[in-house]
Amino acid sequence: MLTLASDFGTPYPAAMKGVLVQRTDARLVDVAHDFPRQNVRAAAFWLREVLPYFPPATHLVVIDPGVGTDRRAIVVRAGDHALVGPDNGVLLPAARRLADGVPLETYTIDETLLDPVEPAGTGPDATALSATGGRDGREGPASATFHGRDVFAPAAAGVHEAGIEGIDDLEWLEPLADDPVDHTLPTPTLADDRAAGEVLVVDEFGNVITNVPGDVLAERERIVANGDPVSVGETFAAVPAGERVATVGSHGYVELDVNRGRGDASFGLEPGDRIELEPIDRDEG
Amino acid sequence: MLTLASDFGTPYPAAMKGVLVQRTDARLVDVAHDFPRQNVRAAAFWLREVLPYFPPATHLVVIDPGVGTDRRAIVVRAGDHALVGPDNGVLLPAARRLADGVPLETYTIDETLLDPVEPAGTGPDATALSATGGRDGREGPASATFHGRDVFAPAAAGVHEAGIEGIDDLEWLEPLADDPVDHTLPTPTLADDRAAGEVLVVDEFGNVITNVPGDVLAERERIVANGDPVSVGETFAAVPAGERVATVGSHGYVELDVNRGRGDASFGLEPGDRIELEPIDRDEG
Amino acid sequence: MLTLASDFGTPYPAAMKGVLVQRTDARLVDVAHDFPRQNVRAAAFWLREVLPYFPPATHLVVIDPGVGTDRRAIVVRAGDHALVGPDNGVLLPAARRLADGVPLETYTIDETLLDPVEPAGTGPDATALSATGGRDGREGPASATFHGRDVFAPAAAGVHEAGIEGIDDLEWLEPLADDPVDHTLPTPTLADDRAAGEVLVVDEFGNVITNVPGDVLAERERIVANGDPVSVGETFAAVPAGERVATVGSHGYVELDVNRGRGDASFGLEPGDRIELEPIDRDEG
Repeated sequence: MLTLASDFGTPYPAAMKGVLVQRTDARLVDVAHDFPRQNVRAAAFWLREVLPYFPPATHLVVIDPGVGTDRRAIVVRAGDHALVGPDNGVLLPAARRLADGVPLETYTIDETLLDPVEPAGTGPDATALSATGGRDGREGPASATFHGRDVFAPAAAGVHEAGIEGIDDLEWLEPLADDPVDHTLPTPTLADDRAAGEVLVVDEFGNVITNVPGDVLAERERIVANGDPVSVGETFAAVPAGERVATVGSHGYVELDVNRGRGDASFGLEPGDRIELEPIDRDEG
Repeated sequence: MLTLASDFGTPYPAAMKGVLVQRTDARLVDVAHDFPRQNVRAAAFWLREVLPYFPPATHLVVIDPGVGTDRRAIVVRAGDHALVGPDNGVLLPAARRLADGVPLETYTIDETLLDPVEPAGTGPDATALSATGGRDGREGPASATFHGRDVFAPAAAGVHEAGIEGIDDLEWLEPLADDPVDHTLPTPTLADDRAAGEVLVVDEFGNVITNVPGDVLAERERIVANGDPVSVGETFAAVPAGERVATVGSHGYVELDVNRGRGDASFGLEPGDRIELEPIDRDEG
Repeated sequence: MLTLASDFGTPYPAAMKGVLVQRTDARLVDVAHDFPRQNVRAAAFWLREVLPYFPPATHLVVIDPGVGTDRRAIVVRAGDHALVGPDNGVLLPAARRLADGVPLETYTIDETLLDPVEPAGTGPDATALSATGGRDGREGPASATFHGRDVFAPAAAGVHEAGIEGIDDLEWLEPLADDPVDHTLPTPTLADDRAAGEVLVVDEFGNVITNVPGDVLAERERIVANGDPVSVGETFAAVPAGERVATVGSHGYVELDVNRGRGDASFGLEPGDRIELEPIDRDEG
């Protein structure tokens, strides 16, 4: 199995799929191609939440604001899973969770040793690509701007075909001499019934997802969020339509929502904002 | 074959797919994951229109405004098809059409008997989930807010693996003692060349889809829609770009469209609005 | 392998997939279903750029502003690939590139000879379809407005099942007596270090994709685009966030971009606009 995640929208992911199906019969499953553009943190969060539900697989991830710079292309072995993508930290939170305590093994991709991607066509409608002998008029196997198609997809197909135990034998992979770029999702502080954390992401429903563990809502009916009292509910439906509710999301964290509305607009919160939760005084609650 | 439909956007459906591929080799086909949010009627309509084109399959449907309340989770056997989703009526119009006259058989899912979903990971990036011993700090196998992943996907995989004749033997299914919640799409009134109906949904093109059978447009060149005369055409292209046209959609109902434009904006109509169609007087037409 | 491309959004493509899986076990890969509505040129461009990355396949393309008119439905054999869609030129640029110099073979689809699409259901929730005996109250196998489902999907399944060498034997295909409608993407003029071309499309990132070959940027640090000097970079990241850059896209053409911003807004350009590129004078550069 091979999963795909990117911020490409369409139709760019289809070119990656074309490259993949040329090189592997692996089942392909899209995770998402509409991750917030070039937002390493949001993608790192969602991948950590979603990939653990998959069986052992190769995960191709292209959230790559540094494409074309000298950032490395890497493969991370995380237990029975392999992750392929740019060395910008986006793979690490998911990899750590998938590895489940097993030390990660990391490799750099030497793109000059990859079997180059060769699209069909030199006819009258061929692009400048074939006219110039090398992609984008430059030497070498990869375009400067679409490493998803020209580097990561071939690498992911190769990793999948090699199998998790065969990664060490791939001649275009080199063990990383130093550590990969890491990305650590922010950690909340918890003390005396109070919690201070951060808005991680806002999902498509407008639900404000924080990094505060859901435990802080246990046994409570209301809570103070950034100074305002809010009802606590097991679900959105615990409050009337249009009302605010603090709940525990499917990922185990506190979410600030509006039943049948948008929490981000109502609370005035966006990713990166600080969030403080404290108990309500008895005479207020 | 197993189809998926939801109003989740991304990346939540990928978590459902991860759960599914852990439990079944069934071919997965997405129907849509961008159905209007929590809109049972729109989803019921589209599913009734689209699912009949599929061969016998298990259809996983998560349009679930009542998630976390005590609404039941159900399986509906409709002839050779099975539908899995919340007991809010969203499954019924499609089920009746798929059953083609065969009586429906309905079951409740006892989620406490389902093999629980167990994501990978207890490492340093594990979520609050693993820290609290139970999802969301609560006992039991399912999160309060993501039954698509934790209840419906496991149930759909189980139904698919059991096969349509094996549903009766699944120990986590119980025949429904009463009727499931139903949802009946509104029925138009037809009399004397006049038709009164309702706007069912507006599609992505802005086409206004009504519940009035296409027959009322037969042999007509123009018609009066809510008081305004409109051309009747076999297709959008029957009128110049930017002009209004009443046509019969692929589903057999009257649509109010604008060629290369949006019918909803031009006619000022939205789902639930009343629509009256009457013949044009000869001296007007 | 069978690829699908359309401007349908959702859920209409699912009905096409239902028809396809009824008739073929081919692997299905979505290219895109959110191509700009009824925009033959944009789709023709993207298909030419993306399809060459696929192995030999049947490509189902439904960008069909003339649906319901007498425009023909065609099949184009392009070497080892087959393309199925409307006769409006959308298939031709991709077909020429896939054919790689081999002459194209073109056929019209006689839809009256296709095995008709028969959805399930005549129950109480059946649509007007079954009530009228023929789709949309008219005779014949196809709806007037959804040829993607009723004509092109059955034809694509049939072509795939016949195999590329078996196309000639399909009784519902007839060799085209004349030429198909063609669509030629505009050609730039190149002379004396100057290039004049056109904006082909704007992608989801807001990148302005022109038809000027990337060669004109070779060895340059800056260039004048429509009168304004712009930095030339190998990648977006060559300039600070928010700044303009001319680069060579993955397709080999000049793109006008803004690093982490939208090039279309910054340059005031949209598809069809003229673009002139000229060298910068030494005393300016």
